[in-house]
Amino acid sequence: MDLKSVIRTIPDYPKPGIMFRDITTLLADARGFRRAVDELVQPLAGAKIDKVAGIEARGFILGGAIAHQLCVGFAPVRKKGKLPYRTISESYALEYGVDEVEIHVDAIKEGDKVLLVDDLIATGGTAGAAIRLIERAGGTVVLCSFVVDLPDLGGSAKLRAMGKEVVALVQFEGE
Amino acid sequence: MDLKSVIRTIPDYPKPGIMFRDITTLLADARGFRRAVDELVQPLAGAKIDKVAGIEARGFILGGAIAHQLCVGFAPVRKKGKLPYRTISESYALEYGVDEVEIHVDAIKEGDKVLLVDDLIATGGTAGAAIRLIERAGGTVVLCSFVVDLPDLGGSAKLRAMGKEVVALVQFEGE
Repeated sequence: MDLKSVIRTIPDYPKPGIMFRDITTLLADARGFRRAVDELVQPLAGAKIDKVAGIEARGFILGGAIAHQLCVGFAPVRKKGKLPYRTISESYALEYGVDEVEIHVDAIKEGDKVLLVDDLIATGGTAGAAIRLIERAGGTVVLCSFVVDLPDLGGSAKLRAMGKEVVALVQFEGE
Repeated sequence: MDLKSVIRTIPDYPKPGIMFRDITTLLADARGFRRAVDELVQPLAGAKIDKVAGIEARGFILGGAIAHQLCVGFAPVRKKGKLPYRTISESYALEYGVDEVEIHVDAIKEGDKVLLVDDLIATGGTAGAAIRLIERAGGTVVLCSFVVDLPDLGGSAKLRAMGKEVVALVQFEGE
């Protein structure tokens, strides 16, 4: 099964010139969804992890499935102001301005080996901030898993330069 | 394992007088998360469903895990303006004003048997709107699964009055 064939491209979304890669068509496909989960954890090669961290909001769907598959707990990485308990936060640069992501102070335990999950990596701003958060909390990100990589935007290279292993199932180049 | 014991209560969040039921502590607990998923699908008793619909955002985590467990596809129910493709939408009343949820026009196929998932049911506004959306798209909601029910707010009774089967793992009364 070619996972790329079940990802929908929406031209000019959210603004002119952007080709939006929509994984909802993959998630809706039972075989595609299961295949993606299997391939996203494959580089672990059975190595034990302690927790899956998923990035809001599409990373919650895949991350929830992966935590279930691996029989581990799940930690949500959310946009600022969405988590109800005490948090730690990290900011990251946007095209114009900055944004912030947060985790609960007790979401990650000292020594936790963590798998970070999102649907797509572009510039890597959010994923980089999520890694810093997890490691400030005492965890170690052992793998970063994405369905889609837009390599021309440099995010996956940036995470590898942070010393992280990165898996992405599908690449769309030239963006 | 008592699931209630791994749900955190945050007093006066998001505003004074509200006891917020925080399931992130349950999700972080590998045994609690797995147990919740098992119990949320238990009323299906092996009956075949075609798709899991999860409500943004915490319903994505549980819904993703449940879709994985049942080997079916996943359909996201999102707040207005978040889905990239063509959508259908339904509005529902809030304490002051209205809000809207959406699904992609092709998220549910004619005849799909659907399991609806969210973390918590209070007044049932969002869940009711999600059911109407799924059924307008030609699907049938065969079960609505929630971790937490606040029965005094009437949502679970409302869904049952719509003819729906409802499972909730934990009740908090007196709110």
